[in-house]
Amino acid sequence: MQEKLRVREDEALRVDAGVLLGYVTKVFLALGLPDEDAAIAADVLVRADLRGVDSHGVAHIQPEGFYVPWLRRGEVNPRPQIRVVAERPATALLDGDHGLGMVVGYRGMEEAIRRARDPGMAVVCVRNSGHFGMTGYYAMMALPHDMIGLAMTHASPMVVPTFGRDALLGTNPIALAVPAGREPAFVLDMATSTVAAGKLEIAARMGVPIPEGWAADQEGNSTTDPVAGRRARRLLPLGGTRDQGSHKGYGLAAMVDILSGVLSGVGATSMLSGGERGHFFAAIRVDAFQPVGEFKAMMDRMLANLKGSTPAGGHDRVYVAGEIEHELEIERRASGIPLHSEVVAGLCQVGEELGVDCGFLGI
Amino acid sequence: MQEKLRVREDEALRVDAGVLLGYVTKVFLALGLPDEDAAIAADVLVRADLRGVDSHGVAHIQPEGFYVPWLRRGEVNPRPQIRVVAERPATALLDGDHGLGMVVGYRGMEEAIRRARDPGMAVVCVRNSGHFGMTGYYAMMALPHDMIGLAMTHASPMVVPTFGRDALLGTNPIALAVPAGREPAFVLDMATSTVAAGKLEIAARMGVPIPEGWAADQEGNSTTDPVAGRRARRLLPLGGTRDQGSHKGYGLAAMVDILSGVLSGVGATSMLSGGERGHFFAAIRVDAFQPVGEFKAMMDRMLANLKGSTPAGGHDRVYVAGEIEHELEIERRASGIPLHSEVVAGLCQVGEELGVDCGFLGI
Repeated sequence: MQEKLRVREDEALRVDAGVLLGYVTKVFLALGLPDEDAAIAADVLVRADLRGVDSHGVAHIQPEGFYVPWLRRGEVNPRPQIRVVAERPATALLDGDHGLGMVVGYRGMEEAIRRARDPGMAVVCVRNSGHFGMTGYYAMMALPHDMIGLAMTHASPMVVPTFGRDALLGTNPIALAVPAGREPAFVLDMATSTVAAGKLEIAARMGVPIPEGWAADQEGNSTTDPVAGRRARRLLPLGGTRDQGSHKGYGLAAMVDILSGVLSGVGATSMLSGGERGHFFAAIRVDAFQPVGEFKAMMDRMLANLKGSTPAGGHDRVYVAGEIEHELEIERRASGIPLHSEVVAGLCQVGEELGVDCGFLGI
Repeated sequence: MQEKLRVREDEALRVDAGVLLGYVTKVFLALGLPDEDAAIAADVLVRADLRGVDSHGVAHIQPEGFYVPWLRRGEVNPRPQIRVVAERPATALLDGDHGLGMVVGYRGMEEAIRRARDPGMAVVCVRNSGHFGMTGYYAMMALPHDMIGLAMTHASPMVVPTFGRDALLGTNPIALAVPAGREPAFVLDMATSTVAAGKLEIAARMGVPIPEGWAADQEGNSTTDPVAGRRARRLLPLGGTRDQGSHKGYGLAAMVDILSGVLSGVGATSMLSGGERGHFFAAIRVDAFQPVGEFKAMMDRMLANLKGSTPAGGHDRVYVAGEIEHELEIERRASGIPLHSEVVAGLCQVGEELGVDCGFLGI
């Protein structure tokens, strides 16, 4: 459903998903992560690329990207002691010990799934984690267990409140994954801002104006100038303007900040100076409410009703959340993941610096 | 935060909240509800009026309104046997036995709060309920228990999917209530469509165009004609257009439909022909994660950071969700609830037909 920042085919090199996974795992191993954690972190990134969410994939493995310098500078702990610091039968608070977000996030959702077994559902809040990549990954971890998965995280300040000038909230994504039968799972994975920051980058590069409702200037007013929007680092909440319901996008962003930041104790985005993050995960057993088969059959009917409905004038298809990503994943698993040559160059440079051979990537 | 369809002061009569509550309770008693249920149903409606959510208040107590004819025609069961039909320690599925939505909704949230005590949180799904008024009411029931409350319901088909022509989803509201300390509670209560249907009614009455992104015509295309929009009964999901993120509003509406309709077993909106509704409620103990005092102090800081932030040009104040409603509630508890003379006339007519005296309402 979400049109993320996808690589243009004509600038791309196709790399096999398994090869890429192996390489990125080795990079994380070289950065000091234990075997299992390195494999987890790599899987979260490669899965994003497989699903076309290129903005949250291996493109961040760069000499000056997110995770590599953080681990090298010791800002992220490669071998965290992740532990439960508070618990009840259906809840847990996890301390991530400043580990890599993808590893801490995985452990958090794993804990929610494990804990949901007896009580029927569970919530796990996580503190002292970091940037964890594609939110939908964690929600989707519930699917093989016939559970509904919910994941949220707050993020660095980049979104203004309705009527406000200061970016006090992050793009604060919400992801929900629901198993279906014949149909692919319903996977909603959305930032609570109108668009991701990367869309401004593309418009700026192309020299085209952006629509009203995407970004604000230094004064907090909606701007159509992508350069001004990027400089200001002020995205508008979903809805864009008050007239179009931006107070709802703002309210959802605040909700995510409360559940990830305040309930975990790490602090709301407006109180944080560093890269610490909190997350919120929930897992719900489908069979606590309905027999799994009946539930999936009903999901199939609902999704088919939406997909089979008449398109509006000028459109030829109605999609459901996660459908486009699912199709891309099938295609990319078969034909490889298209990576921009600059991304491949950065990946290789990281490998060179760490003594990991990237020759097989096609360079 | 939400600018609902408020009564114009110059057309209004001020009625004391307690007097109104007593009167509406008697109306529900006369319609066959047991004492406690009548008081609950009346409280849900009057609370909406107190908070300025006039579109979900006593204005629906009319000879041809929602609840009165439904009860009179036997479509709603005045004395339902509400019962748990499936349960685990942190979950329950409630059958509402086609009772009045406000009563069934109240029992559902009550069950979630009660069940959350030991496991730390609980989810309750409800089937065979009906239109239940203001969603925020149920979420706010968690507040006195130092819990976070979440409530959702699906609704009658009135919202089109992104790129679609057919209204297959409801306005499907989401409400979250979070306790704070000195600050009023954070109460998000939002439809997942750009606007409520009533806004088109107002624009049509005033003969002014509506902004793009609110409603679609018969073909599913965005229209600025409020009359065409009303006739088509096709609202657009939050975001309005794909460019402005309507696939996110659509995704959220589908999420609510799944959690309320499919998980409860009542069916997604696109499968229902009658007025049956499903709801989804959750309650989370704050102290399962943080000491209550520390949590509330952190909520206060977060809310103060937002409210104290610099307004954008042309604005003089940044609000948080629930703030405007909280202020209205204080004012209306003190000075009475403004009711349009037509609403009062309808309320009295219902009373006359049922043998309930409305003289004290000021007529």
